[in-house]
Amino acid sequence: MTDRWESKLHEECGVFGIYSPDGADVVSACYHGLYALQHRGQESCGIAVNNQGVISCHKDLGLVSSVFTREVLEAMGPGQIGVGHCRYATTGSQVVENAQPLLIRHRKGNMALAHNGNLTNAGELRREYELDGTIFYGTSDTEVIAHTITRQRLVSASIEEAVEKAMQKLKGAYSLVITSPRKLIAARDPMGFRPLCIGKLGESIVFASESCALDAVGARFVRDIEPGEIVVADDRGITSIRTRCGKKGSLCIFEFIYFARPDSVIDGCSVHQARLRAGELLARRHPVDADVVIGVPDSGLDAALGYARESGIPYGVGFIKNRYVGRTFIVPGQEQRENAVRIKLNPVSETVQGKRVVLIDDSIVRGTTSQKIVKLLRDAGAAEVHMRLSSPPFLYPCYFGVDVDSSENLIAYTHTLEEIREIIGADSLGYLGIDDLVHLVPECPYGICDACFTGNYPVDPPSVGNKDQFER
Amino acid sequence: MTDRWESKLHEECGVFGIYSPDGADVVSACYHGLYALQHRGQESCGIAVNNQGVISCHKDLGLVSSVFTREVLEAMGPGQIGVGHCRYATTGSQVVENAQPLLIRHRKGNMALAHNGNLTNAGELRREYELDGTIFYGTSDTEVIAHTITRQRLVSASIEEAVEKAMQKLKGAYSLVITSPRKLIAARDPMGFRPLCIGKLGESIVFASESCALDAVGARFVRDIEPGEIVVADDRGITSIRTRCGKKGSLCIFEFIYFARPDSVIDGCSVHQARLRAGELLARRHPVDADVVIGVPDSGLDAALGYARESGIPYGVGFIKNRYVGRTFIVPGQEQRENAVRIKLNPVSETVQGKRVVLIDDSIVRGTTSQKIVKLLRDAGAAEVHMRLSSPPFLYPCYFGVDVDSSENLIAYTHTLEEIREIIGADSLGYLGIDDLVHLVPECPYGICDACFTGNYPVDPPSVGNKDQFER
Amino acid sequence: MTDRWESKLHEECGVFGIYSPDGADVVSACYHGLYALQHRGQESCGIAVNNQGVISCHKDLGLVSSVFTREVLEAMGPGQIGVGHCRYATTGSQVVENAQPLLIRHRKGNMALAHNGNLTNAGELRREYELDGTIFYGTSDTEVIAHTITRQRLVSASIEEAVEKAMQKLKGAYSLVITSPRKLIAARDPMGFRPLCIGKLGESIVFASESCALDAVGARFVRDIEPGEIVVADDRGITSIRTRCGKKGSLCIFEFIYFARPDSVIDGCSVHQARLRAGELLARRHPVDADVVIGVPDSGLDAALGYARESGIPYGVGFIKNRYVGRTFIVPGQEQRENAVRIKLNPVSETVQGKRVVLIDDSIVRGTTSQKIVKLLRDAGAAEVHMRLSSPPFLYPCYFGVDVDSSENLIAYTHTLEEIREIIGADSLGYLGIDDLVHLVPECPYGICDACFTGNYPVDPPSVGNKDQFER
Amino acid sequence: MTDRWESKLHEECGVFGIYSPDGADVVSACYHGLYALQHRGQESCGIAVNNQGVISCHKDLGLVSSVFTREVLEAMGPGQIGVGHCRYATTGSQVVENAQPLLIRHRKGNMALAHNGNLTNAGELRREYELDGTIFYGTSDTEVIAHTITRQRLVSASIEEAVEKAMQKLKGAYSLVITSPRKLIAARDPMGFRPLCIGKLGESIVFASESCALDAVGARFVRDIEPGEIVVADDRGITSIRTRCGKKGSLCIFEFIYFARPDSVIDGCSVHQARLRAGELLARRHPVDADVVIGVPDSGLDAALGYARESGIPYGVGFIKNRYVGRTFIVPGQEQRENAVRIKLNPVSETVQGKRVVLIDDSIVRGTTSQKIVKLLRDAGAAEVHMRLSSPPFLYPCYFGVDVDSSENLIAYTHTLEEIREIIGADSLGYLGIDDLVHLVPECPYGICDACFTGNYPVDPPSVGNKDQFER
Repeated sequence: MTDRWESKLHEECGVFGIYSPDGADVVSACYHGLYALQHRGQESCGIAVNNQGVISCHKDLGLVSSVFTREVLEAMGPGQIGVGHCRYATTGSQVVENAQPLLIRHRKGNMALAHNGNLTNAGELRREYELDGTIFYGTSDTEVIAHTITRQRLVSASIEEAVEKAMQKLKGAYSLVITSPRKLIAARDPMGFRPLCIGKLGESIVFASESCALDAVGARFVRDIEPGEIVVADDRGITSIRTRCGKKGSLCIFEFIYFARPDSVIDGCSVHQARLRAGELLARRHPVDADVVIGVPDSGLDAALGYARESGIPYGVGFIKNRYVGRTFIVPGQEQRENAVRIKLNPVSETVQGKRVVLIDDSIVRGTTSQKIVKLLRDAGAAEVHMRLSSPPFLYPCYFGVDVDSSENLIAYTHTLEEIREIIGADSLGYLGIDDLVHLVPECPYGICDACFTGNYPVDPPSVGNKDQFER
Repeated sequence: MTDRWESKLHEECGVFGIYSPDGADVVSACYHGLYALQHRGQESCGIAVNNQGVISCHKDLGLVSSVFTREVLEAMGPGQIGVGHCRYATTGSQVVENAQPLLIRHRKGNMALAHNGNLTNAGELRREYELDGTIFYGTSDTEVIAHTITRQRLVSASIEEAVEKAMQKLKGAYSLVITSPRKLIAARDPMGFRPLCIGKLGESIVFASESCALDAVGARFVRDIEPGEIVVADDRGITSIRTRCGKKGSLCIFEFIYFARPDSVIDGCSVHQARLRAGELLARRHPVDADVVIGVPDSGLDAALGYARESGIPYGVGFIKNRYVGRTFIVPGQEQRENAVRIKLNPVSETVQGKRVVLIDDSIVRGTTSQKIVKLLRDAGAAEVHMRLSSPPFLYPCYFGVDVDSSENLIAYTHTLEEIREIIGADSLGYLGIDDLVHLVPECPYGICDACFTGNYPVDPPSVGNKDQFER
Repeated sequence: MTDRWESKLHEECGVFGIYSPDGADVVSACYHGLYALQHRGQESCGIAVNNQGVISCHKDLGLVSSVFTREVLEAMGPGQIGVGHCRYATTGSQVVENAQPLLIRHRKGNMALAHNGNLTNAGELRREYELDGTIFYGTSDTEVIAHTITRQRLVSASIEEAVEKAMQKLKGAYSLVITSPRKLIAARDPMGFRPLCIGKLGESIVFASESCALDAVGARFVRDIEPGEIVVADDRGITSIRTRCGKKGSLCIFEFIYFARPDSVIDGCSVHQARLRAGELLARRHPVDADVVIGVPDSGLDAALGYARESGIPYGVGFIKNRYVGRTFIVPGQEQRENAVRIKLNPVSETVQGKRVVLIDDSIVRGTTSQKIVKLLRDAGAAEVHMRLSSPPFLYPCYFGVDVDSSENLIAYTHTLEEIREIIGADSLGYLGIDDLVHLVPECPYGICDACFTGNYPVDPPSVGNKDQFER
Repeated sequence: MTDRWESKLHEECGVFGIYSPDGADVVSACYHGLYALQHRGQESCGIAVNNQGVISCHKDLGLVSSVFTREVLEAMGPGQIGVGHCRYATTGSQVVENAQPLLIRHRKGNMALAHNGNLTNAGELRREYELDGTIFYGTSDTEVIAHTITRQRLVSASIEEAVEKAMQKLKGAYSLVITSPRKLIAARDPMGFRPLCIGKLGESIVFASESCALDAVGARFVRDIEPGEIVVADDRGITSIRTRCGKKGSLCIFEFIYFARPDSVIDGCSVHQARLRAGELLARRHPVDADVVIGVPDSGLDAALGYARESGIPYGVGFIKNRYVGRTFIVPGQEQRENAVRIKLNPVSETVQGKRVVLIDDSIVRGTTSQKIVKLLRDAGAAEVHMRLSSPPFLYPCYFGVDVDSSENLIAYTHTLEEIREIIGADSLGYLGIDDLVHLVPECPYGICDACFTGNYPVDPPSVGNKDQFER
């Protein structure tokens, strides 16, 4: 759930919004909603509050707990609409300029916008707009979205019409939450790459990336927003625009495998359930004679429990994770660097000593972390270590909001299964099958995106060189 | 492991020390050792470093991650001996004056001292010393220990002799790590209330409250320090003074039930194992016909697994704990206060919906938290909730280093079992038996302290009124 | 020089730029230059550094001393061009969004822009651009300037051509420093409302609002930039574009009376000299029989010295100003509020006791401060207090970069001279004459702006309502 | 008034106290009083507040403005007695442990103590107490004072009796403000090295190092505390104990020359007046044919005015001091280091160009600063520079609270007058005469201490080596 290793994948963002006709505390709701979505982005966060059409915004680098002090929250004052955002970003772009929500002023009023996802045609749109003399302040594609909507707004009767027209131009992944002077709008791209759902809290309407954020603010889950759907909350209640909704979708399967919180339900599927199933499917596909099944905390635990249940091998607690190791942790000097992993993750000897261990993790990116973890177990006395991954081998980059290395840095792209097993030092190695993926989320009414495993991109990826320049 | 609720018990402190004849990075070792001991005290922390007899100290309120920035660590410079400390404190005494290590200057040199535990005669000694004109700067009993040792030092040939004599005067619980100009000394009170162990890292000697801190710095566990033992590390290696060692001891059983990290081994007993056993014993003592066994994270998880194994009822993941909620979290306004618990702990509906649930927690103090947790499960659809506690009912205050309410505030002291069950809203309620306790740690060569359950204090408690005034 | 009272006037900004062909430390130069210009704006500050065409920027609310820590400066790295800015802003707009330099990305590259002054047609231009779908992020007119230049840049062969064309559209006061990928450009509006000068530091070219900033970085003063002039520094040295230069100018006379530092020389005139002259002219216009002449620190001191010299009455030190009172100073509770003024400014009794005192200040805005100061003197034993102001009565708002109240809040607009004298409690009261103003700066080759005293605006003021909405 | 150069002298501390029978806001008074005394110590500050006998204290490194935020002040709550302190310290001892007030707990209650000065027998007393087993936490002699008073308190009927007895043991300079549970006590050493005065604010009694702090809180000056006097404020009003008062005193003359604020009156003498007289005496002793007299801000300005008045040479403004340069200012890189002085202090060319300048400063310590200042004037076009110092040559270290280099580092000790003149580059050089000193403060009823000029120490200095070890 948190960025455990340097080589771990990263989600881009979490979004949250609330429309309160009866003056509920929208700032407080955004604050607590972001706490529940913090795992989706720990780099920067922000809240925009709309008080009678005057929108103000506070955002900064850092966790919700450090950006929003009591003083800041009190200074934000009351409002009827709130929009929250938390964001992940690579080191190079850790700049407050790219923090969200993005607050802009245009011809027909103000607008604050929060975005989760990644456009595939941000570069083309940016070039097009620059030819007209448009200025850009940051490098995020969210700014491109803001310009696209604003341009449509000038020739549209309403903000929702502008969003609807803008969606014709925008390609790729985007779950948006927007406040105009009098409305709160949520929109999900036609492929539904990223989750987005609706809740109700008294008379208030709530939008959030994951249902766990609804729980956190005491809202009742209503339903997921459909791929391609625009939902408008205003003084007439909720309105839905479905002109961009198709029959199909391509929900990112990695939301279930790793990104989302296990207590969230996305497009009808429980994340926890999906992970249990991944473990069960793994047990069927790659059975092994062993004494105990353990998971790598936190994301591997559920799959380990599923593997244990299906295989009949006892489930055990293999590691204790240090909850205090965060961004400010200082890696030890040369002599102790080898031990750094043990400060974060320490094996429970009693569980593994003399045992044949099945070790479940969600994925292998570069292999260095898996190598260290396997060694930890062997040092703790494990007789055998059988590694099982609750996802297929990672082979292709993602263009829809996940920070994936180019194929060259993915161990599964450059090595055979046997080579990887040898590198990480396991006695056996087994991945989830690509055809297993759909069975993780049988309740999902749309399709899934498995492009990072198959290379079958549901939307054309950007042309070469584009990713580096514009993604963030 | 962290302070989850306002009504949770609190350990006082963690201590760490390193003596490095060959110039290992003692500051870095203390830093990482404290990271591993952070769960024992999150209020303040400090490191004293002894460089050729010149001892300097940095300490402040806050977590290790915020007190020790890169800048601070670099400024601390090299040293041959380091002493670290982390501390819990009640709200009223959140003052940097009480932070440790305590650095003092006396007739025969300097001394830095870190203390885990609680004296029962701190008040008497304080009054005795004040009659001689002694000044106290803070309210901690650690200052009383420093004065006691210093007074003996004037009439002793060595610091270890002074510590040995001081132990005649000191009553209660204390695990000490002390640096004199040329030595590192560890001492454990004759009853061994609090843990303390020895490790080896290359040529360096390491002392720590728990073995997980040895793991974190890459040290090899050597042995526990015996109750009553003084261990001296200096240029001649390790020397042991056992004149205060008796046959018996009274190790705090709550170290196993709640305080210590599951990956630690204390006095020969694995903490994880002890918790598994508590679950097994609970399953035998209070069996129930149910569908799933879940634990309250983090301390209830191991016992839940033990209960599941023994009972044959499947183990499930019942709650997701928000890892980002810390000290700076701001409780929501009146209207949302009821939901505060869901921000910290959210049930996984799939696990409990329609199920008869066995819910394992480590203890009930006031009952308010248990009440909320049971309600969470019922709201998530649990058909039945059977609460099981991995400790006996809490009836008496602790005078040996645990922050326990007076009996009047302990629900088990003021209510019957049936009343408690009704208050918390469970379908059934079962505690671990007092005679089960010894079976949690069969390998422990000394006795255990179960005074908070039985009122049988191994050392006379302080006279009335003493606790409030002097404890911290 | 600093904002002494709540009712004091405020300058908008200070700008600084350096072009270094030989790799001088441009960040350090900007840092020290801003220290020297800090009196022109204490609300926010920023530095943009251009390293081989890649421009990065750090800016935040706060003084130079707090925004630019050693860590921040080191992280900014090397560069060939630097642009610095410090800014004043009214309370309502204390937002980091309006801090400068403004860093933008457009079709033909990046640009960082620092602006001192105020456009009179910002509202019109903003509306015009918004009709094209342009988005604005903040409320400052600097953003309007950036859009104006960018639009011209698309149809111009060079950045300087774009600036030259943009100047046709921009109305009002602006002294600009801009870095394009390869050039550093300075431009001053055709009326030259705000100062801007050129210096040389080795091979480096320096631009600054005041010459004191050249002194601070060790640069040699070369000359002032003419009203309407554009100066380009690039690898061919300095180029000047004078197509917008007219014969006339209207330099803000308040730069001499209050804003600028006395050690600066602006358009050929020494600020210190101008203040001495103001005092001399006051002495001739409003002589009085008195024992001592004192000034209100800091801006009244020079004029007091001039008055003393001309009148022959001894100059004295009347007040000690507390140098530690800044933004974070907390005004005392109700009972002590009356004394707040004495914490900031304490009379020297020995100087005034039993004396007939001539008190010189630079201006009266609302009168409340003058009232308090006169009372301080009387309490300290002054026999008579004759107030003299080194500027004419303030009657009209400024639209060119000074934060002046609307006429209704100006005491001189709503009251007669005698009424004012009575309100502030002085024995006599005398202002500088409007016809004295030109004699303050006899060396100035252009005219001066005295609109705040006469209402004769050299450029049409914005239409009603414009000021509130767009000024900052 | 502020520490202008690295080579400048430093005062140790400022003290403040208030006893309020009617519940005035004592914390607010301490806060504002410390603002007025900030020039006496900018390294750390603190306030202790006594609420019905319960004394709490907040202190930290930093200026009053940064240590006491609104939040901190509000958390300090109400009280009847307050004690404030600000402190200077050399780099090596910039530790919060040495910050004051010192809050201690002893047999007969609590006590908070603030101290300005320096004991000459701190080392002896410390050794004596350590032999009894006393522990010291810091290195300040204030801790020695606390122990001395506490020891007497055990055998005394009252705190004032204990202070009176302690004064028999304490040697050297000390102005103390102490709160016991029910009293506020001020005491000044029998030689009266450091100032201390009494004021009245409504029914409240105020003690302060300088009268300017009384002004700042709106208190009326009552009188100075006599050398050797103890003043007690309690519910019976004010009581005075004069058993330690002798006829003579030895007030530090440097309080007038440099340390104190010009608006303060000490022992009947105006600081401003004393400086004016220093200038007049200098003019008589070292006349010169010149065009303008200027002072080095801030402490040289008054003496320059005095010189100008006596000599008839016009007074001018020679330098502008940058008010924003403080502790966090970062000295420029190698290439610009020469200009650092111009960032802090810039000459006003108009004043000195082509002129024969008389330059007044308060003293020369090492000479490096004077050298730079003279060079600044020559670069600005001064025809001649005649340096005059408003104190005699500095020859001997101070043991009474001023941070003076050992004689070896004092330029006047190692060089002849002519050598110094040549080193600093002046055309002529003249010091105030030792016999002039008494004429600075003719109203002072006690003697003055001129030991730093004459070596005639009014109290025996500590034995060799003592200073380094214990002073701070």
